Amino acid sequence: MTPSPPASSASRSVALMTDKYELTMLAAALRDGTAHRRTTFEVFARRLPAGRRYGVVAGIARFVEALPQFRFGAEELDVLASFVDEATLAYLADYRFSGDVDGYREGELYFPGSPVLSVHGTFGECVLLETLALSILNHDTAIASAAARMVSAADGRPLIEMGSRRTHEEAAVASARAAYVAGFAGSSNLEAQRRYGVPALGTSAHAFTLLHVTDRPGQTPSDWETAAFRAQVDALGLGTTLLVDTYDITAGVANAIEAAGPGLGAVRIDSGELGVLARQVRQQLDALGAKQTRIVVSGDLDEFAIAALRAEPVDSYGVGTSVVTGSGAPTASMVYKLVEVDGIPVEKRSPDKASHGGHKQALRLAKTSGTIVEEVVHPAGDPPPTPPELVGTPLTVPLVRGGRIVADLGLEPARARVAAGLVSLPWDGLKLSKGDPAVPTRMIAPTRDG
Amino acid sequence: MTPSPPASSASRSVALMTDKYELTMLAAALRDGTAHRRTTFEVFARRLPAGRRYGVVAGIARFVEALPQFRFGAEELDVLASFVDEATLAYLADYRFSGDVDGYREGELYFPGSPVLSVHGTFGECVLLETLALSILNHDTAIASAAARMVSAADGRPLIEMGSRRTHEEAAVASARAAYVAGFAGSSNLEAQRRYGVPALGTSAHAFTLLHVTDRPGQTPSDWETAAFRAQVDALGLGTTLLVDTYDITAGVANAIEAAGPGLGAVRIDSGELGVLARQVRQQLDALGAKQTRIVVSGDLDEFAIAALRAEPVDSYGVGTSVVTGSGAPTASMVYKLVEVDGIPVEKRSPDKASHGGHKQALRLAKTSGTIVEEVVHPAGDPPPTPPELVGTPLTVPLVRGGRIVADLGLEPARARVAAGLVSLPWDGLKLSKGDPAVPTRMIAPTRDG
Repeated sequence: MTPSPPASSASRSVALMTDKYELTMLAAALRDGTAHRRTTFEVFARRLPAGRRYGVVAGIARFVEALPQFRFGAEELDVLASFVDEATLAYLADYRFSGDVDGYREGELYFPGSPVLSVHGTFGECVLLETLALSILNHDTAIASAAARMVSAADGRPLIEMGSRRTHEEAAVASARAAYVAGFAGSSNLEAQRRYGVPALGTSAHAFTLLHVTDRPGQTPSDWETAAFRAQVDALGLGTTLLVDTYDITAGVANAIEAAGPGLGAVRIDSGELGVLARQVRQQLDALGAKQTRIVVSGDLDEFAIAALRAEPVDSYGVGTSVVTGSGAPTASMVYKLVEVDGIPVEKRSPDKASHGGHKQALRLAKTSGTIVEEVVHPAGDPPPTPPELVGTPLTVPLVRGGRIVADLGLEPARARVAAGLVSLPWDGLKLSKGDPAVPTRMIAPTRDG
Repeated sequence: MTPSPPASSASRSVALMTDKYELTMLAAALRDGTAHRRTTFEVFARRLPAGRRYGVVAGIARFVEALPQFRFGAEELDVLASFVDEATLAYLADYRFSGDVDGYREGELYFPGSPVLSVHGTFGECVLLETLALSILNHDTAIASAAARMVSAADGRPLIEMGSRRTHEEAAVASARAAYVAGFAGSSNLEAQRRYGVPALGTSAHAFTLLHVTDRPGQTPSDWETAAFRAQVDALGLGTTLLVDTYDITAGVANAIEAAGPGLGAVRIDSGELGVLARQVRQQLDALGAKQTRIVVSGDLDEFAIAALRAEPVDSYGVGTSVVTGSGAPTASMVYKLVEVDGIPVEKRSPDKASHGGHKQALRLAKTSGTIVEEVVHPAGDPPPTPPELVGTPLTVPLVRGGRIVADLGLEPARARVAAGLVSLPWDGLKLSKGDPAVPTRMIAPTRDG
């Protein structure tokens, strides 16, 4: 057996997954002494992707768990030595994040202005984290937000994430994780199983059927397909899923049942008009006595196509491109903004990009039925009173204290939060059509002492 | 100094960045003996993203260089042991890709049906590579294809890729590389500099200006901004770029020149109506004697916004979200299809997803002026004669032989190919508006012996 190379990403420094300007700003701030000022940076999205009614926070655990790897070793410092001074290099050699992080828990819904993450510490230790925090949260949140719409559209039927091939190979692993958080049953991606315990699922590809071609006279594609199906059932058992659309679907279904018998686990249809085909295949399977054989459909499915198949005899969906690309919104457009310096709220005034100053927390108000009505963003430590007819739930929780993780970061609780969040939306919020955020966000400005 | 953790990705196994079904297909094919058949798999795109007129191949080097890391060690085999048999585990323990790879060189243009990559070897060794090959090529090609349109729109002015925060943290590194291949001047991403030598560039963020807030009576935002600018110039020199839109742009420009003098390198505008602002800022800088101070613009730029600023006094562009998300096309939609088994061309017949059988190569025909006229995809080893009035250039080159890299994979030659490719397009091909591929693809079917 080949010795295993170090395969975990746990030991790699992520400190250069950073924009150069974070380092030059640090150098300038060290030089004029401002690097040691106490700051709060906030991650939020000014708006949801066009027409979306809610978003789902994901990536919190990936970010928090990356903090200990945000260290500058000799190799990283070598890269920086060409453009920052000795004092900065000395600061970085000792760098470890020792501040606090608060934020929404993974799987929580969010809306425009929700203070999804707050990072507290010196300017020097916080400014360096901007790029990594946003890369992780923008990617994972975009995927989870799209995936949650698909879960909602599938109305209880299982979804399999199988889009690894349509996105960057590491983004694929994070996408599998985010889709699972949002409620997908699992993913085709094996690395996501290893790294995060996401259940790995899979069927078969056209290549396996095509592989069984021969040049023997008199043999037909149907013979080759039957040979492929027999081989798959022989190796993987009756519970396997046979892909029936390589040559002709009707012949494919017949060949599948011939090879496996009526106890076959499932067939997959990957092309054509899926609704019509699902009905035909269901009838054919039933007529062949394969009443328990399930139908899996795949092929350019998004939340709209999934919803359109609700009335059809589809048992599960395989979703690829649309989920790993955020179904039209591949980034969540979150930003990381300095909101407080030594207790003074700060905000920029750029047109259309204004930020709201001050360290904030959030509270979500719901009716006693559980239906949410408002997102309230308020100065930290100063929540407004909850009206007696409503229930208020604080959304901001401690994630890191003094550089140490203090929150439960499990995937299963995150999945439960998405499921609970979808149930808490007003009916309008679950519509797939374009619209406004499901609930309004109320921003309560900080009281200025001066 | 902290000891450096192992930071390179060179030693990590990528073998689980794979869909589960690749492994179950292998298990079935080992069991029935078909795993050892000689196969050719081909990577191609059935179509370009909607309305695009050309694409730019990227990721070839990343894929080829990942092949030696596609090994199954003890940790990887542990993950697989739950669902594949002992014979498959034994096969994987010895797995290394020892076949051949041909393909387009990085930076080459491609069109619908272009055989971008051909992988030759046994079914067992080739089938496992599908997900990794597609993840890398689909991602990097999507970014390079969008970036090339921006380079073309910028008409010679430098572009800086600064979208790391809007995409997965590893996709960010690959995006910086792909944008550089396409002709961007550099990237904000430091890891891309370390890993690939992409020039790292950067300016400053609003946070640095906001950091200089004080609560001293009588001080104004203009005072804080001037203090920040002085600190930046002090640390980074006169050649730095000052960000002038935190509070008020006109005051910001005046403060910048007050802090730096007329020898300031550049100012950056990150918000508002960039064309109007660039003109105003240019006038103001000139009036202040800062005639050499350059203007950098950023803020939701895509190829259309870049083109719209051509007539304005903009010296360079900072591009974020749109380039790292492929400007509306985040994946190149390439597929990896089995096209030949033991010398027999194979193809599937699924509706709208048919593939063309047979091992292929490609030739591009151009006028003697250099303008390309046709992409010709032909059976391998059997190119059609080039008409006497045209010049034919073979596009398919050997990349890997017997598992060893045989091609030059440098980034600079790839950049040169993109630049040459853009010049070779017919005028219509450079239009940003939606249209058909710039040249047609002619598919020459294999001659069947039988």
